Amino acid sequence: MMPPRGFSEAEFDARLGRGQDLMAASGVDALLLTTEPEVRYFSGFRTPFWQSPTRPWFLIVPGAGKPVAVIPEIGYQAMAETWVEDIRTWSAPRPADEGVSLVTETIRELVGDRAVVGVPTGPETTLRMPLNDYARLTASLPGVHFGDATQVIKNLRMVKSETEIAKISHVCRVTSAAFAAVPQNVSQGHRLSEVFRSFKIDLLTRGVDDIPYLVGAAAPGGYASVISPPDERPLTHGDVLMLDAGAVWDGYFCDFDRNFALGLASPDVRRGHRTLRRAVEAGCVTAQPGATSAEVFAAMAAVLEGAGYAASSVGRMGHGLGMQLTEWPSLTPADHTPLVPGMVLALEPSLQINPDHGLVHEENIVIREDGPQWLTQPASAELPQIG
Amino acid sequence: MMPPRGFSEAEFDARLGRGQDLMAASGVDALLLTTEPEVRYFSGFRTPFWQSPTRPWFLIVPGAGKPVAVIPEIGYQAMAETWVEDIRTWSAPRPADEGVSLVTETIRELVGDRAVVGVPTGPETTLRMPLNDYARLTASLPGVHFGDATQVIKNLRMVKSETEIAKISHVCRVTSAAFAAVPQNVSQGHRLSEVFRSFKIDLLTRGVDDIPYLVGAAAPGGYASVISPPDERPLTHGDVLMLDAGAVWDGYFCDFDRNFALGLASPDVRRGHRTLRRAVEAGCVTAQPGATSAEVFAAMAAVLEGAGYAASSVGRMGHGLGMQLTEWPSLTPADHTPLVPGMVLALEPSLQINPDHGLVHEENIVIREDGPQWLTQPASAELPQIG
Repeated sequence: MMPPRGFSEAEFDARLGRGQDLMAASGVDALLLTTEPEVRYFSGFRTPFWQSPTRPWFLIVPGAGKPVAVIPEIGYQAMAETWVEDIRTWSAPRPADEGVSLVTETIRELVGDRAVVGVPTGPETTLRMPLNDYARLTASLPGVHFGDATQVIKNLRMVKSETEIAKISHVCRVTSAAFAAVPQNVSQGHRLSEVFRSFKIDLLTRGVDDIPYLVGAAAPGGYASVISPPDERPLTHGDVLMLDAGAVWDGYFCDFDRNFALGLASPDVRRGHRTLRRAVEAGCVTAQPGATSAEVFAAMAAVLEGAGYAASSVGRMGHGLGMQLTEWPSLTPADHTPLVPGMVLALEPSLQINPDHGLVHEENIVIREDGPQWLTQPASAELPQIG
Repeated sequence: MMPPRGFSEAEFDARLGRGQDLMAASGVDALLLTTEPEVRYFSGFRTPFWQSPTRPWFLIVPGAGKPVAVIPEIGYQAMAETWVEDIRTWSAPRPADEGVSLVTETIRELVGDRAVVGVPTGPETTLRMPLNDYARLTASLPGVHFGDATQVIKNLRMVKSETEIAKISHVCRVTSAAFAAVPQNVSQGHRLSEVFRSFKIDLLTRGVDDIPYLVGAAAPGGYASVISPPDERPLTHGDVLMLDAGAVWDGYFCDFDRNFALGLASPDVRRGHRTLRRAVEAGCVTAQPGATSAEVFAAMAAVLEGAGYAASSVGRMGHGLGMQLTEWPSLTPADHTPLVPGMVLALEPSLQINPDHGLVHEENIVIREDGPQWLTQPASAELPQIG
């Protein structure tokens, strides 16, 4: 059941080829990448050292030929184990010139003094380097136009390969099994912080590599926040317990949640959960190749509104996922991204039972040629009961 | 032994007061903050939702009065539980105006059309919002000067309160105990990936909240990379096993490593380990209030060089830590930050036994009025042996 770790060199070659096609089509001579997922996507470079904000890392993808890494010396050995061959290092930290002159020289060498360098600067992107250093870099290449490469990166990363899908599928499967065991492991009186701890231990025991994201809540009749860490409150009869897990296997996330009733839930809560489950089903059925993000949103919203609830108040009802917990596209009325085979989505409708109490439910799917396919083991419509 | 979770409102008030003094001294009318540690430092806002790159979050610290949060609606409830009172939200994601107009209005209301807004743009900082949106924001406030506030943030966060130190001390203590148990839990034949997994489970069982950073290596006679995730290689007689852990309790990191010999290590490896341990001791003794980062570096370098090794090749021999795995200052020859009581440092010398095999050793200390104090239970000079 467990897929192999890592990627073949052919996969990186295919990513690069698709990327260079998209670059050519949008008039970009080279990409300048600074963020973990983008550097990893083109190189295979993996380290949790991105936790340290001290050092910037750069990958430059030319219009032809393999990516060039411009990185702190501490990363040389790990980068040398990837398919990247041209690795240039400086002894970081060196705040007076934190890679800036080396990136400048490398860009000049690869694309010359007059060129278009694409940097992701649009929605859902950040530049992971000091802003002052970016200003120095662009000033040192006055003939180079630094343009927005968000679309190139988005169009590449939104569509997953079979190898990527296998990793996401695996972590969804393992996490589904861990969620299924929650009623055996959790009881009234357990503090929410202890529920989180034991759930993380169970996930690791079952084989996930990490749980970078775990949020949840336990409150009577629904909850108000859907992004909170645990408190120290013991679980009580009448609580709805929600756990939302972004677990990782071999660098790929799942992102879905489960709700549980401590004792018997109120009719309102049970009806809300059934409605969310129906909304997810409607979203899934709609998520055919050629449909749009907005249409999937509309299908879920129709179920919620048909049952008398407002459509989700948290801004969207799902999103892409993969190397990050959330990726493009967004399931909103304004996002008209056409779905294509290989896209992986979280369907995530939420509703308010009353102004202070809400519910959220989430599943993960992959778009296939012949339609959507569950990656998670979907939750039952009836809210599972604990105790 | 376990300190209380969270912070008093008095602590946030003291941070704000110190911050506003530093702002006044450097002519900054308001701070615009976008990154997790900075937002958390002034507000107490905690969520792992920062994993999602979709939505920017803003905290504006005026020259007088409490911080103002400008955040996605999904975060309202969690922010409302902090001491922040003025919380302004928009329904995100909304790429066409991802908080930009709301931040513009808020800045104008707080400091007017002609003011200096400080943004951290110097070493070790990033701006966590799309660069295009930052350009729109600055263009919409043409009378406002957006200046670098790195020094304000650095000077604030480098010096920890007693409550912060207690959290770091707690996670150092728990992680020291987990490291001490490694020889009982690890054997020859265990794959490195399994060593990582069981170490994480042990850390969680002992009470840490998360292990965002765990790197390591196992290789004969030392290792080449000090920032790598585990491979699938079984531990073998003659290996040196290194684990470097950034575990978190209540939002605060430890960051230190331990080395172990599988069987008896070679005389070269044992001498290297003893030398690193002596270098850390020399660094600690030197880390008195009034000494500088560079002097601590020099003390460690002198031990390495005295024993015939080159000074560290990874750019520095330690750093601050706290809310992040690594923080200011850097222990380098160029960093002349004076040490003051309340600073927490990782002392982290490394050396090469030969061109392909190195060792790194790391401990955490806090600077007190009367001198440095260990936060970790320091490793023995003799490399511990497994099997």
